[in-house]
Amino acid sequence: MTTPFRTTRRVEFSDTDAAGIMHFSAFFRFMEQAEHDLLRSLGLSVVMADDVAKAGGGKLSWPRVHADCDFRVPARYEDVLEIEVTIGRLGEKSANYQFRFVLGGKELATGEITSVCCRIIAGQPPQSVAIPEWFRAKLSPFVVSATDG
Amino acid sequence: MTTPFRTTRRVEFSDTDAAGIMHFSAFFRFMEQAEHDLLRSLGLSVVMADDVAKAGGGKLSWPRVHADCDFRVPARYEDVLEIEVTIGRLGEKSANYQFRFVLGGKELATGEITSVCCRIIAGQPPQSVAIPEWFRAKLSPFVVSATDG
Amino acid sequence: MTTPFRTTRRVEFSDTDAAGIMHFSAFFRFMEQAEHDLLRSLGLSVVMADDVAKAGGGKLSWPRVHADCDFRVPARYEDVLEIEVTIGRLGEKSANYQFRFVLGGKELATGEITSVCCRIIAGQPPQSVAIPEWFRAKLSPFVVSATDG
Amino acid sequence: MTTPFRTTRRVEFSDTDAAGIMHFSAFFRFMEQAEHDLLRSLGLSVVMADDVAKAGGGKLSWPRVHADCDFRVPARYEDVLEIEVTIGRLGEKSANYQFRFVLGGKELATGEITSVCCRIIAGQPPQSVAIPEWFRAKLSPFVVSATDG
Repeated sequence: MTTPFRTTRRVEFSDTDAAGIMHFSAFFRFMEQAEHDLLRSLGLSVVMADDVAKAGGGKLSWPRVHADCDFRVPARYEDVLEIEVTIGRLGEKSANYQFRFVLGGKELATGEITSVCCRIIAGQPPQSVAIPEWFRAKLSPFVVSATDG
Repeated sequence: MTTPFRTTRRVEFSDTDAAGIMHFSAFFRFMEQAEHDLLRSLGLSVVMADDVAKAGGGKLSWPRVHADCDFRVPARYEDVLEIEVTIGRLGEKSANYQFRFVLGGKELATGEITSVCCRIIAGQPPQSVAIPEWFRAKLSPFVVSATDG
Repeated sequence: MTTPFRTTRRVEFSDTDAAGIMHFSAFFRFMEQAEHDLLRSLGLSVVMADDVAKAGGGKLSWPRVHADCDFRVPARYEDVLEIEVTIGRLGEKSANYQFRFVLGGKELATGEITSVCCRIIAGQPPQSVAIPEWFRAKLSPFVVSATDG
Repeated sequence: MTTPFRTTRRVEFSDTDAAGIMHFSAFFRFMEQAEHDLLRSLGLSVVMADDVAKAGGGKLSWPRVHADCDFRVPARYEDVLEIEVTIGRLGEKSANYQFRFVLGGKELATGEITSVCCRIIAGQPPQSVAIPEWFRAKLSPFVVSATDG
């Protein structure tokens, strides 16, 4: 059973809208923050200047190719949301992050972001590359296993 | 063949991020704007005080239950994005809006938002209701027909 | 010498812009968060249903009448900004919050927000009122004294 | 008497907050849009690769050093705000833009942004420079004259 990475985020007033609840687009910003909190906890970052980058090969970064979210219960100003992160699939060149928003034991929303590992050289389109082994090794414990429910 | 509703939105500097492109969450804000532009063009709004509301039955509004987006090509500062809107499914109580982002004839992204027709009474949870006929009639021309590709 | 309230906020990727730094408008969102963190630490909130509100007198809230910021040094992705809050002036009906953004001992920016104490009744314009004594008493320790530098 | 540059911006649902009005920080994003609309109308941009830039001298850009806003009347969802832009002062190296938000003839807010003309070379701090004459000449008609009220 995979243990998810857990982080929290308080809903700020600027995250709300005139319906009195958190705007649906804020869930996507919060998913990104949770992804970055996970990477940071592993000594990684969403933009990294590794040896290849230092040798002119381009920084390692992760453009998104897909994001989705299912909204079940609204989040409100000052709610401190718990966000769980697991990795649904760690492919050769891409990672699919899965997110679960929980408040007081109740699931508010679930979503996912799929990102592709790329080398970014200024003035050129991003070039997808295989995820480096040292990066993959750190993410692996969060990959949901076949035996997970 | 259904003719989509078309609107445009310029990418502002505040929509961009440190990767030099429009932040992925902005596509969701732009989809919402396009949905609202469609409603406005039909004399509708995302929050309406109709006769039922005036009689105390609660304003008509449309909480989202789902949103997703597939990102193919980045959008950049000052790009004027064309956004096409069709309705993939107009159910008894919900509408599924489909969006296509185009720049210079190239498709940048496609996405969708599913919203549920609700009556909103302050202090109570939203109550899903059947889409009123006068609302449905105006949306119907944008529903993608079975013969559409 | 007044001891400021201190809070922190990490710069998220969605706070940055294509210049590679935090967008200037985010400083205003962060000032608001710091104001709200101060209120929360005192058992207060920016929207309060006190006894007057429960008796139908309207919730207590604080519309802004002024905000400004001077920017000296850019903030960047993943910077954990320290934000200091003091109160420059606590008038009969308004509060002037002053903010200082610090990173690694260096001052990045300073700003202020002036808010007016109001009763908010739905469908009516906000009505400015004297700050209740129980609210004022909690804010008082953060008012900058005449002898402060 | 200086004729201001005029542009418009509709308040989108994502610009509102749980107080039911446009969030105060959105006025700053709208001021920036109005500044950029003015520059675009003149064939200029907030980031320009002129001959100096092409010769390696760095792109011309305009980091902000100050922004402020006075809020008088709230803006609401679907309001189409008229924004007037003039230039309060065009210094050797800086420009002070002044903004006025109007709805239905009523002034909602006024604000200003002061930006400094800089050359931006990657990996170096911005370097302030004299505003090029070709840039200054285009902005000059919008400078408020001494005889303006």
